[in-house]
Amino acid sequence: MVALSGGIGGAKLALGLSRLVPGEDLVIVANTGDDFEHLGLHISPDVDTLMYTLAGLANLDAGWGRAGETWTFMSALERLGGETWFLLGDGDLATHVERTRRLAAGEALSAVTADFCRRLGVAPRLLPMSDDPVRTVVETPQGELDFQRYFVERSCEPVVRSLRFAGAEQARPHPEWLREAARPDTAAIVICPSNPFISIDPILALPGAREALRAATAPVIAVSPVVAGDAIKGPTAKMMRELGLPVTAHAVAAHYAGLIDGYVLDEADASEADQIAVPCRTTATLMRDESDKVRLAAEVLRFAEALNRG
Amino acid sequence: MVALSGGIGGAKLALGLSRLVPGEDLVIVANTGDDFEHLGLHISPDVDTLMYTLAGLANLDAGWGRAGETWTFMSALERLGGETWFLLGDGDLATHVERTRRLAAGEALSAVTADFCRRLGVAPRLLPMSDDPVRTVVETPQGELDFQRYFVERSCEPVVRSLRFAGAEQARPHPEWLREAARPDTAAIVICPSNPFISIDPILALPGAREALRAATAPVIAVSPVVAGDAIKGPTAKMMRELGLPVTAHAVAAHYAGLIDGYVLDEADASEADQIAVPCRTTATLMRDESDKVRLAAEVLRFAEALNRG
Repeated sequence: MVALSGGIGGAKLALGLSRLVPGEDLVIVANTGDDFEHLGLHISPDVDTLMYTLAGLANLDAGWGRAGETWTFMSALERLGGETWFLLGDGDLATHVERTRRLAAGEALSAVTADFCRRLGVAPRLLPMSDDPVRTVVETPQGELDFQRYFVERSCEPVVRSLRFAGAEQARPHPEWLREAARPDTAAIVICPSNPFISIDPILALPGAREALRAATAPVIAVSPVVAGDAIKGPTAKMMRELGLPVTAHAVAAHYAGLIDGYVLDEADASEADQIAVPCRTTATLMRDESDKVRLAAEVLRFAEALNRG
Repeated sequence: MVALSGGIGGAKLALGLSRLVPGEDLVIVANTGDDFEHLGLHISPDVDTLMYTLAGLANLDAGWGRAGETWTFMSALERLGGETWFLLGDGDLATHVERTRRLAAGEALSAVTADFCRRLGVAPRLLPMSDDPVRTVVETPQGELDFQRYFVERSCEPVVRSLRFAGAEQARPHPEWLREAARPDTAAIVICPSNPFISIDPILALPGAREALRAATAPVIAVSPVVAGDAIKGPTAKMMRELGLPVTAHAVAAHYAGLIDGYVLDEADASEADQIAVPCRTTATLMRDESDKVRLAAEVLRFAEALNRG
């Protein structure tokens, strides 16, 4: 089982899948287009949200960061005149400092991530989509913005005209997930209910990524991040409007046209299923607590089995 | 007034002096031989101890670090398998991260220090002894040890055969303190009661530093870090024994022979004054609370006036 994921929404389904798919049989591919250098530190927000979620360390209320976090660093930094627009908790900072140190010593992001996951007791294989840098750039009427400047500093307020993924053409997808995607015994490739434009498209922009999904014998199943004309969290709905798309589950399915073999959408959008070109499964897709996450994951697995049987 | 200082003991007297000498008239020269790179961060322990002490942020009980510190970073780092032998508090970390960022951007250590001090309300001018790297290396029977490995990781346990200050010959003393030392209206140059071998000698090892002290019209006054055959804190006494020196105020004065014009020693060591080649002032030198620090500082200032009158 391979799951492509961004941060919050994707991490919820990834957690559900991790409760059903044993240990290393689950490969989670994390978007790294959101990664950036801040205060001299390498920050990988989606990798960390997935890692903390799978390790049981995540702050589930906030949807990002760690539970039981303290903020002494941030207030001391503010007094020293440092940049405070991106919040870094004291415990979270250990991840960034130690990762930056190890990257500077020549380790690959995937190797550092694998070691952190092992130490934190994360059983699935969590892979950054690539060990090479890819940086999402948001094109707005006011010019280009680095992703985190758009997302955090400007609170997604600027209008998005388009997105580009700097470095994607030169980046190599991590070979492990391409290999897993190609295995004949892989049960499914799941596109998690993450923002298609900023969480999934960077993964798909890697050379060979789309081809790998098309060539896979396993069914590729996307789960809609849009429910009843809105997104659960984050800028997906606003971004779709700005990109001239209707805010519908259907529009997301159309965005993945040619790549997916099945689509999971919310009961609230059941009426859209007829317009969608691939087999659909309608179910409750809101994931409020862990049982919701496991239930949706189970539904995705059953859907994959059905598609596999053909 | 110019004061040469290491960390804890020196910072106590520096705080006392700062209560008596108005703002920028006090120049405090901090040893940077203890500086090191750790976890990719530039750490300047003596600069920080002085800065936190003068800003009223120091943890006076511990003698290092910040009051009201939290330790979430450290415990998270431990879980990730990071190096934990050097304790970094969450608030302290802001100093290291922001300083490292600014140094990497091309600023000088002295410029970053001056800006931090301004923001933290530190009135005296706190200068790193040099903007160039100097690294104290401890030679032991087991080989050479970087200073913090000796001092913190090995708790000063290895026997010290000698010390060297790598980079000192190429380093330029910060010109501001040489200039202040040379001013005809400078009232005194004070060598604080810091460890002579690891806190003061690195400063004196800089090209031109000894010459500047000898050429100064202001009296150079050292305050003994040894009281009644022991040092208040740190490895001074153990180190003196290992270097073959008696643990006496006299031996410290002899170490500074040719450089100092006056020597302040504790009442407990009054009998040694006769053997010391320069004028002495005996007084209570223990600094338990702020009034002790101010009282000793005042005593040093009066002694300087007496020496100036000649």
